[in-house]
Amino acid sequence: MEIEARLAAMGLALPPSVLPPVGVELPFSFVRLHEGIAYISGHGPQHVDGSLAGPFGKLGADVTIEVGYAAAQAVGLSMLGSLKRALGDLDRVTHWLRLHGMVNCAPDFAQQPSVINGCSHLILALYGAERGAHARSAVGMASLPFNMCVEIEAAVAYQ
Amino acid sequence: MEIEARLAAMGLALPPSVLPPVGVELPFSFVRLHEGIAYISGHGPQHVDGSLAGPFGKLGADVTIEVGYAAAQAVGLSMLGSLKRALGDLDRVTHWLRLHGMVNCAPDFAQQPSVINGCSHLILALYGAERGAHARSAVGMASLPFNMCVEIEAAVAYQ
Amino acid sequence: MEIEARLAAMGLALPPSVLPPVGVELPFSFVRLHEGIAYISGHGPQHVDGSLAGPFGKLGADVTIEVGYAAAQAVGLSMLGSLKRALGDLDRVTHWLRLHGMVNCAPDFAQQPSVINGCSHLILALYGAERGAHARSAVGMASLPFNMCVEIEAAVAYQ
Repeated sequence: MEIEARLAAMGLALPPSVLPPVGVELPFSFVRLHEGIAYISGHGPQHVDGSLAGPFGKLGADVTIEVGYAAAQAVGLSMLGSLKRALGDLDRVTHWLRLHGMVNCAPDFAQQPSVINGCSHLILALYGAERGAHARSAVGMASLPFNMCVEIEAAVAYQ
Repeated sequence: MEIEARLAAMGLALPPSVLPPVGVELPFSFVRLHEGIAYISGHGPQHVDGSLAGPFGKLGADVTIEVGYAAAQAVGLSMLGSLKRALGDLDRVTHWLRLHGMVNCAPDFAQQPSVINGCSHLILALYGAERGAHARSAVGMASLPFNMCVEIEAAVAYQ
Repeated sequence: MEIEARLAAMGLALPPSVLPPVGVELPFSFVRLHEGIAYISGHGPQHVDGSLAGPFGKLGADVTIEVGYAAAQAVGLSMLGSLKRALGDLDRVTHWLRLHGMVNCAPDFAQQPSVINGCSHLILALYGAERGAHARSAVGMASLPFNMCVEIEAAVAYQ
C-alpha cells in the first residue's frame, strides 16, 4: 500500500465510486481490465460522497487556471479511486501509459496543459518519473457532461 | 453467428462499408487488427447504401437527445459492420474495451452521456454485461466531419 | 534506416525534441513504450529549432484547408522525430495502429478529414499501405494549446 501511504502523506484521500447523476444511466465500466492494461473511462472531479464536484463551467470564461488545476488533481483522485476498486491495490500499477486530458473551455482559451498538469503532477508525485510518466494530450472541448470543467481518460499497465 | 442472430431479433441490420463522400480520400483502415486488439476508426451513422446518414447538426441546437440517441445506435451498427468485415464473425469479439463518444454540440449542451448511451445500450444488449462493458468517455466537440452529430472511436479485444 | 532514407528523398527532415513554451512544464513523456506499443503524446507542428510552429488559429476562420494539411504533415514529422528518439530507428515501427487527429476549428467547419490527411498521407508514403494503415478519427476541437491549428495523438506497434 505504498502509493496510498504517499497519498495520505500528501493529505489526499480517494473518493468513493461515482454516484450517477439523477436520471442518467451509466451502462459501462469505470475501469476495463484486459491482459495487463486498465482502460480508464473519462472521469470528472468528485465530492467525498461520490457525487460530481464543481467547479462547473469553462476555462477562459468561468473557471481560472488555478481552479482548473485543482479540478484536474481531483480528477486524478477519482481515477485512482476507480483503479483501486478495480485492482485492489494501487501498487499493482506498473506504468502509466496514456492520459487524454479534456478541458471544457472558451474558443480562445489556449492553456490546456497548465490545467491538466494538476493530474500529471499528482501521478508523478505518487508513482515517480519511471512508473508515472505518460503520453499525454491536453485539449479544448466545446463542452463536457454536466458542465464539468475537466474530464480525463487514461490507460495504465498493471500486474 | 450468435451476435448477428441477436441483431436480427432486434430488427437491426449491419450497414455496408462506408462510402467516402465525394472528393474525400480515406487513406486509412476502418479497423486495424494487432495482437488481439481491434482499433476502430471514428465512425458516423450510415444509410443502408453505405453513405453517411443524418441527422446532421449539433445537439443543443439542431438535434434532440432522442434523435442523437438513435444516431449513436446507428454509429454502433456502423462499427459492428466494419468489425464484421475485419473479423468475419462478430462472435470473435471477446471484450469491448474502450469507447470514445464524441458529440457535435452547442457550447452549453451538457448531456453527452444520454446521447452516447444509444451505442452503449446496443453493445450491452448484443454482448451482455461481461463481454460488452467498456471504459467510456462521452464528450462535446466543436464540430465533426460533414456536420455529423455523433462520431465514436473504439477498441475491442478479439480472438 | 530505410524510412529515414525515404524522408530524405521526399525532401523532409525530422525536427528536434519539442522545446517547451516559456513557463509551461511538460511533466510527461512524448512517447511511452510498453510491450511493443508506443503511445505517442499529442504533438503539434514544430520549427527546426524545436519550438512550436504556426500557423496558429482555427480552420474555418484563420487557416485554410491547404495550410492545415501542411500543418498536419508537420505534426507527422514531429511525431516521427519523437519516435526516432524513443526507438532509435524508425524502421522498428511494424504497424501504425491509431491516429486521433484534432483540428482547432470554428463550429461550422466540417472538413477535418481533408486536414488530417496531411499526416495520414505522410505515414502511408513512408510506411506503405500494409505497415502504415491506421484506425483514424479526425475531429473538431473548441481550442488547442497555444492556439495550434492541429494536434495529433497516436499509437504504433514496434519491435
